[in-house]
Amino acid sequence: MPKKLLKNINLPADIRQLSSDELPLLAKELREFIIDVVATKEGHLGASLGVVELTIALHYLFDTPNDQLVWDVGHQAYGHKILTGRKDVFHTNRQQGGISGFPKRSESEYDTFGVGHSSTSISAALGMAIASKLQGNDKHHIAVIGDASIASGMSFEALNHAGDTNANLLVILNDNAIGIDPSVGALKHYLTRIKSTRSDIEQHNIFEGLNFDYSGPIDGHNFEELLLELNRLKQVEGPKFLHVITTKGKGLKQAEQDQVKYHAPGKFDKISGAILPKEASKFTKFQDVFGKTIVELATENKKIVGITPAMLTGSSLKFMLEEFPERTFDVGIAEQHAVTLAAGMATQGLVPFCNIYSTFLQRAYDQIIHDVALQNLPVIFCLDRAGLVGEDGATHHGVFDLAYLRCIPNLIIFAPRNEIELRNIMYTAQLGLENPIAIRYPRGKGKLEQWNLPFEKTEIGKGACLRDGNQIAVLSAGAIADNVSEAVNLLNNEVSVAHYDIRFIKPLDTELLNTIFNEFDKIITIEDGAIKGGLGSAVLEYASDVNYTGKIKLLGVPDEFIHHGTVEQLQQSCGIDSLSIQEKIISLVSK
Amino acid sequence: MPKKLLKNINLPADIRQLSSDELPLLAKELREFIIDVVATKEGHLGASLGVVELTIALHYLFDTPNDQLVWDVGHQAYGHKILTGRKDVFHTNRQQGGISGFPKRSESEYDTFGVGHSSTSISAALGMAIASKLQGNDKHHIAVIGDASIASGMSFEALNHAGDTNANLLVILNDNAIGIDPSVGALKHYLTRIKSTRSDIEQHNIFEGLNFDYSGPIDGHNFEELLLELNRLKQVEGPKFLHVITTKGKGLKQAEQDQVKYHAPGKFDKISGAILPKEASKFTKFQDVFGKTIVELATENKKIVGITPAMLTGSSLKFMLEEFPERTFDVGIAEQHAVTLAAGMATQGLVPFCNIYSTFLQRAYDQIIHDVALQNLPVIFCLDRAGLVGEDGATHHGVFDLAYLRCIPNLIIFAPRNEIELRNIMYTAQLGLENPIAIRYPRGKGKLEQWNLPFEKTEIGKGACLRDGNQIAVLSAGAIADNVSEAVNLLNNEVSVAHYDIRFIKPLDTELLNTIFNEFDKIITIEDGAIKGGLGSAVLEYASDVNYTGKIKLLGVPDEFIHHGTVEQLQQSCGIDSLSIQEKIISLVSK
Repeated sequence: MPKKLLKNINLPADIRQLSSDELPLLAKELREFIIDVVATKEGHLGASLGVVELTIALHYLFDTPNDQLVWDVGHQAYGHKILTGRKDVFHTNRQQGGISGFPKRSESEYDTFGVGHSSTSISAALGMAIASKLQGNDKHHIAVIGDASIASGMSFEALNHAGDTNANLLVILNDNAIGIDPSVGALKHYLTRIKSTRSDIEQHNIFEGLNFDYSGPIDGHNFEELLLELNRLKQVEGPKFLHVITTKGKGLKQAEQDQVKYHAPGKFDKISGAILPKEASKFTKFQDVFGKTIVELATENKKIVGITPAMLTGSSLKFMLEEFPERTFDVGIAEQHAVTLAAGMATQGLVPFCNIYSTFLQRAYDQIIHDVALQNLPVIFCLDRAGLVGEDGATHHGVFDLAYLRCIPNLIIFAPRNEIELRNIMYTAQLGLENPIAIRYPRGKGKLEQWNLPFEKTEIGKGACLRDGNQIAVLSAGAIADNVSEAVNLLNNEVSVAHYDIRFIKPLDTELLNTIFNEFDKIITIEDGAIKGGLGSAVLEYASDVNYTGKIKLLGVPDEFIHHGTVEQLQQSCGIDSLSIQEKIISLVSK
Repeated sequence: MPKKLLKNINLPADIRQLSSDELPLLAKELREFIIDVVATKEGHLGASLGVVELTIALHYLFDTPNDQLVWDVGHQAYGHKILTGRKDVFHTNRQQGGISGFPKRSESEYDTFGVGHSSTSISAALGMAIASKLQGNDKHHIAVIGDASIASGMSFEALNHAGDTNANLLVILNDNAIGIDPSVGALKHYLTRIKSTRSDIEQHNIFEGLNFDYSGPIDGHNFEELLLELNRLKQVEGPKFLHVITTKGKGLKQAEQDQVKYHAPGKFDKISGAILPKEASKFTKFQDVFGKTIVELATENKKIVGITPAMLTGSSLKFMLEEFPERTFDVGIAEQHAVTLAAGMATQGLVPFCNIYSTFLQRAYDQIIHDVALQNLPVIFCLDRAGLVGEDGATHHGVFDLAYLRCIPNLIIFAPRNEIELRNIMYTAQLGLENPIAIRYPRGKGKLEQWNLPFEKTEIGKGACLRDGNQIAVLSAGAIADNVSEAVNLLNNEVSVAHYDIRFIKPLDTELLNTIFNEFDKIITIEDGAIKGGLGSAVLEYASDVNYTGKIKLLGVPDEFIHHGTVEQLQQSCGIDSLSIQEKIISLVSK
């Protein structure tokens, strides 16, 4: 697909050779390029389409990479990647060995700060800006942040600090009124009022209150406005705030109209924009098992409430929102608040299901300890996207949860092996537990065709024997059990393997462990989480307690950050795929 | 000390029997009572003195405990405790077996939510208020929060959510312009402007922007104003915000004048107010070793910057502020921002020392993983108050850090055994490391008279043999080594104990461990942190790797929340005092 202008653009310096009249054409070509590639290679579409003009304008006017540009979250950075030396490898986006779906320092000097989680950009850019002041250079520092991300507490902390400095920091609010789902909260309404009553409220707005030189709102798809205002702001000292209005999905009609679906639409027809039908599947995503089950439970149990920090669609809590809007709370990108809100509700006898992706629960770690577990409030945490998540890569894997949760007193930790186990533990938890519980389950589909069975109560702290054997015991937790089963099949009775699902990482089923320790002198533990401090460590600790003298070998995610690829590829590289397990079994048995 | 009114007040219902004219006298008596007790028993003085009138007014007008009152942080809740059934036990404050220094649900039904860390109150009260709406009751829900705490991101998240609800929530801003140290940030200046230009700005202020019914500022020591406005607010629907101006330390002249020192002054003369001289000591607090060392280092190395989230005094980073104000950053109660700010600075070649209490680093867990470690930026974390902290109790112990940090790739974790080791690792880290490092050290004084020695470089990843022996090896990390030494002394050569300081919890000194594994078949690990996932687990994991067949026994903080008491008392109850270690050694050797 030959593009008149884009074909000659490899780096921002090339853009700066264009006249400003040519920028709209470049924008058109860049948009088409993004659509062409994402249509077949998949990825985050809508956000990047929305900032095409802004991306070009920034690289046109600012001296990147000397001037430093930080993209919040990074969903919107595809245009930036294409214009900063990665046009020719953009088709490898999110694939193993290819470029990352997010800005990444090791990938390009134009990626000044690695992102993935939300609301880090202002803090990072302020740090750079303060460094520049101290070092006596006159670089510009720009954070581009969406209206959903700026409502997160961390952004407020950074604005509050920045406003009290004279740092050369430009915060650009990319206001499209949507994150992945539509933005929520009082600030969103406030921003809407600013847009509609611009002149009236401008003088006293929140950002000015925090000592920023505020300007806008301006049309983020209009180069004339963008260039004029960005040029002016280059001359303004101290912290500056530019409010830019954009349309998520701009330039692809369907993406503009159905912004939630086109956030990351999968494969679509690049001409018609129609999303291509996914391969038919008999299987159901774990998130949908959660979403459908909570509706069932909430129908019977009026005390149930559902909470999500900005992942209504991703967690499928949207199903509950449809049925019980008054008991469903999307609090925005506010994990800290979500957890303590749940704790407050639990003190009043409500039964809060707080659904947070495993990787994002890291944002609320103190609140789990200090507000939930210390008070032993029976909040039910559902941790979606636990384990290796695949293409989103290092920023998004939910691999630390077992390690960071296991040291917290009072907390129950359960990993359902399949959809039925997820349903049943949700059922059990809402019946009333004495403790908080964390239920961690993977991204993607389960493997059961029939999972919507009558509820059965789960006995807390009980593991299960999945397979008898007498040479070696394999202990797994959660859905990674499937890899063990495959490994056993591969072994074809060459080794007599017993397979146990430990199920509860905490409290451990010590009765079951005693039996295993009595019967086996060779044990392998396997988990799809960090090997340091996780399930394997728990088993080792108990073995030390009871003076077990056999061998225990640990499989899990090694002590390094795991990058992007398919889940299967990443499991292979971590040695927790079925082949690796098979090999480990053979090697341990033959010793 | 017979008090005319206070002697008859045991519960808020008793206050409600008084006429409003009598409240000033009750306030006077309550203030004297607090001063009398805290003068000899120690504790947090200034904050509670500042809210005496507010505390009385709230319990007078609202139907506590049916109406729900949440005190942010809890430093200011002494008056509340005294008026809600704990007058007669208030002298046991912060002592083992006595009442907690913070509100605590298990202590009283008037303590609706346990606090200790900042900025949780609005989230918790909102959760309660939403529950009341759903349950159809008409309780009032009140969060009292200081101006330092409201600037924390979590508070903003809660305000942003609350403003988008119709919850019956009253947020009372106790604005005294100080947290522990004077408040910082753009919001603080904004609040100052509101105070000085009240009528002008009122109409458009930030809290109104977030859809709160804002009123104030009013004088928080004037019952007439307080009662009038609180009574009015009882009738206002939806989220309400009352801005109250108070003086921290009110009623004790010195406490009003030196608010930082009188935050928690230790023992003082209740008549003159003069702080009593502390027992003379030859020893230095670890925090001062940090504070003095960073000044020395920053004098030579201009790239060093110091960052603290609102703990200038507590961390002794104030020493650096005095010498190098332009390189010292108190960012307010904003741990998340502090960490990512440091990461941003590190990308530019600065050498950030980010000093955060161990327990508060829990607030920035995701930022350590996602912004620092994933990018392998050499930020230097100094974790003060690691281990058991004593009287502050369960909310403040720094016991989870080894477990939650150990699973993070790229991160170095070091526990200095003494002041010299702390100095030397700080020196070494600022020379330039390839990785981020967490240096965790305890609250209180070291045991060396002479620690201010010339710097020596610390070899990363190297442990040390402190004592030779041949029957058993004890492995400790950090200052808890002293307890081991005492245990060995107690043993009086009855057992031949080798003692190793593992020093680096990560990376482990595997060479040293190999030696130990070769020489000993009995090993004890000891740490002043959670036994689940900490140092002991690390040693077990490595032992599993190398097929060690001896016995390894773990000592550490058991899997429960540890309450308040002296450090010595708490170490005893955890079995990590010298006597317990001695017993463990004997029992293991005799098996």
